[in-house]
Amino acid sequence: MDGISSINTAGKPIRCKAAIVRKAGEPLVIEEVNVAPPKAREVRIKIICTSLCHSDVTFWKLEHPPAIFPRILGHEAVGVVESVGEGVHEVVEGDTVIPIFMPDCGECTDCLSEKSNLCTKLPFKVSPWMDREETSRFTDMNGETLHHFLFVSSFSEYTVVDIAHLTKIDPSTPANRACLLSCGVSTGVGAAWKTAKVETGTTVAIFGLGAIGLAVAEGARLCGAKRIIGVDVNQDKCEIGKKFGVTDFVNSRNCGDKTVSQVIMEMTGGGADYCFECVGMTSLVHEAYASCRKGWGKTVVLGVDQPGAMLTFRSSEVLHSGKSLMGSLFGGLKPKSDIPILIKRYMDKELQLDEFVTHEVDFEDINKAFDLLLEGKSLRMRLLFSLEYSVMKQSGL
Amino acid sequence: MDGISSINTAGKPIRCKAAIVRKAGEPLVIEEVNVAPPKAREVRIKIICTSLCHSDVTFWKLEHPPAIFPRILGHEAVGVVESVGEGVHEVVEGDTVIPIFMPDCGECTDCLSEKSNLCTKLPFKVSPWMDREETSRFTDMNGETLHHFLFVSSFSEYTVVDIAHLTKIDPSTPANRACLLSCGVSTGVGAAWKTAKVETGTTVAIFGLGAIGLAVAEGARLCGAKRIIGVDVNQDKCEIGKKFGVTDFVNSRNCGDKTVSQVIMEMTGGGADYCFECVGMTSLVHEAYASCRKGWGKTVVLGVDQPGAMLTFRSSEVLHSGKSLMGSLFGGLKPKSDIPILIKRYMDKELQLDEFVTHEVDFEDINKAFDLLLEGKSLRMRLLFSLEYSVMKQSGL
Repeated sequence: MDGISSINTAGKPIRCKAAIVRKAGEPLVIEEVNVAPPKAREVRIKIICTSLCHSDVTFWKLEHPPAIFPRILGHEAVGVVESVGEGVHEVVEGDTVIPIFMPDCGECTDCLSEKSNLCTKLPFKVSPWMDREETSRFTDMNGETLHHFLFVSSFSEYTVVDIAHLTKIDPSTPANRACLLSCGVSTGVGAAWKTAKVETGTTVAIFGLGAIGLAVAEGARLCGAKRIIGVDVNQDKCEIGKKFGVTDFVNSRNCGDKTVSQVIMEMTGGGADYCFECVGMTSLVHEAYASCRKGWGKTVVLGVDQPGAMLTFRSSEVLHSGKSLMGSLFGGLKPKSDIPILIKRYMDKELQLDEFVTHEVDFEDINKAFDLLLEGKSLRMRLLFSLEYSVMKQSGL
Repeated sequence: MDGISSINTAGKPIRCKAAIVRKAGEPLVIEEVNVAPPKAREVRIKIICTSLCHSDVTFWKLEHPPAIFPRILGHEAVGVVESVGEGVHEVVEGDTVIPIFMPDCGECTDCLSEKSNLCTKLPFKVSPWMDREETSRFTDMNGETLHHFLFVSSFSEYTVVDIAHLTKIDPSTPANRACLLSCGVSTGVGAAWKTAKVETGTTVAIFGLGAIGLAVAEGARLCGAKRIIGVDVNQDKCEIGKKFGVTDFVNSRNCGDKTVSQVIMEMTGGGADYCFECVGMTSLVHEAYASCRKGWGKTVVLGVDQPGAMLTFRSSEVLHSGKSLMGSLFGGLKPKSDIPILIKRYMDKELQLDEFVTHEVDFEDINKAFDLLLEGKSLRMRLLFSLEYSVMKQSGL
């Protein structure tokens, strides 16, 4: 754990560097900040590694609430415990942990249930504060409050995270891979594994081969799906998809007179067993639902559409098709029990994580990581960026 | 079996009595008709008993397509095989059978699958003809073609049914009970058993306590549900529901400022594990969905709304709630394998069927049965009719 010791820091504020967003869409500024000691059920961690997810970029660009500034973004990371607040018995100084935006209190009906990952005690919300007590642990050098992001705020050398948002992991796990399990990859893999419960020998169709869609393919592959059909407007995704088990590619711009669902119905002789919408477009949800096998098909909604977007279905189709429609947060995964399973599968060389990483940049170059992601997103032709992951090593840690 | 023999009838038309609808909404006329011999894969049966379902009344009143006249309605029945067409090996003369509107060809992917009851070879449709060959087996005394209904047309002393629509049953089963399993009761019981897969100790909410809703309660009771909440506008359903395992009643007109879903959320401390919409109103589907437990709740749509009715959901709720939305035809039951199981459970005094029957009338009084059902429906206060079943014994058979 490279000699981290809290002898001199526990109970005191830590002064360290953090990347701050002061105004929507403007370059992040690396400044010195004060990180207060953890309060009850909180843990202060030193970030080893963090990665950049689309949600960071979304909240960086967003001008209106729930956007709020100044703020420290970042929610995919691996860290080491520096000190713990009152009543924290689950981790101790030096433990390696993954902070996760999803709470897992371990006490409520949902956290005790095998069927739910939606904590009732600390229901998930997009908040600019700590989870249990709505205050911040960050201030800048002028004493101004800096807001948290998704209960993680990993774009800082140190951050404070509620114990409900921390999962202890094996310290031998490479941090620059494990951090991907904080959000995106877990969401996709979990959607196939836990939400849809993909069965061996089945057919899966994935609408949108971004990081989430590719992670769904990876999850479906691990579940033993026989055929994995990827749908995207970007032809380059055909090759990229193969790395993650995609067996068939449909370019939705090259379907001629047919809809994508018509093409998939023909390819599969009646529809896919599972369809996943990973873009966030209501029209694609309908195509996914229409591409699903009557009698038992499941459609899983993963893409985040605009606030207020509505999904409309013919009542008779819902009634008579025998299909199911479902969604999940964090792929239905329970952070504290399921993430260690995914890490073990990575260490056993079953789950692929390396393939998701396209860039490694120093923390000081965080704006470059934002640029790379934005560029990739806007062009949609640059193969590497479409995988969406840049991992930032926090140098000097 | 009362001495039925086809020695003199097999291969020839049979002249018998049938109740004919000649014009939408006008009283049925009992006339003599000719019933042609069964063609390949068809069976001619003598009806012992038939019951009246809401769909009969719907298609009796309907003035526009898919309504068509003259027609012989009726689709819930028990009969005895009089003769079989070419290639029928599954039943022989004298066998007791239940005709069922749902096909079960026994050969296609769906019929061979345990997960689907939606036959691909003979996909379900509302047709005025036989299923395999689009012709009628009925003519009136003037030679005019009489149309079939839901591949059964049981309001006739004899009818011809495709073998895919026939399930052989134990002849000792009381016909005036078994006929209820042709449609309504099976749909409700199956929705709890096969579609939702209700688990022991769970909580169920049922929107609409008509015959289908009460059958859902009966199914949920058999599956071991701990709490069954019935919702209806008719206070009398509170007492009726108790017979079928309803433990709590919510009169949706007496919820004050609260919505039904708010009331159910409070009663259950977070929502029911399973919600069933049995009325056919999009607003109730939304209440059902909202009444479902986050994390694992399933909403099952059973009510048939107006053609073209749409169901609209907030994308974010579908995405993040962890709830499922599903529907099924015939409660997800596979006629040939599941109906004998339900009959056994009735004979073993586990499944209640007697309680669904409120009237027994002679076939000649078929218009009285329609009146009773209509009256009950329009008043919604007459306890007995709300159970919806009149069983007609076909006297003289």
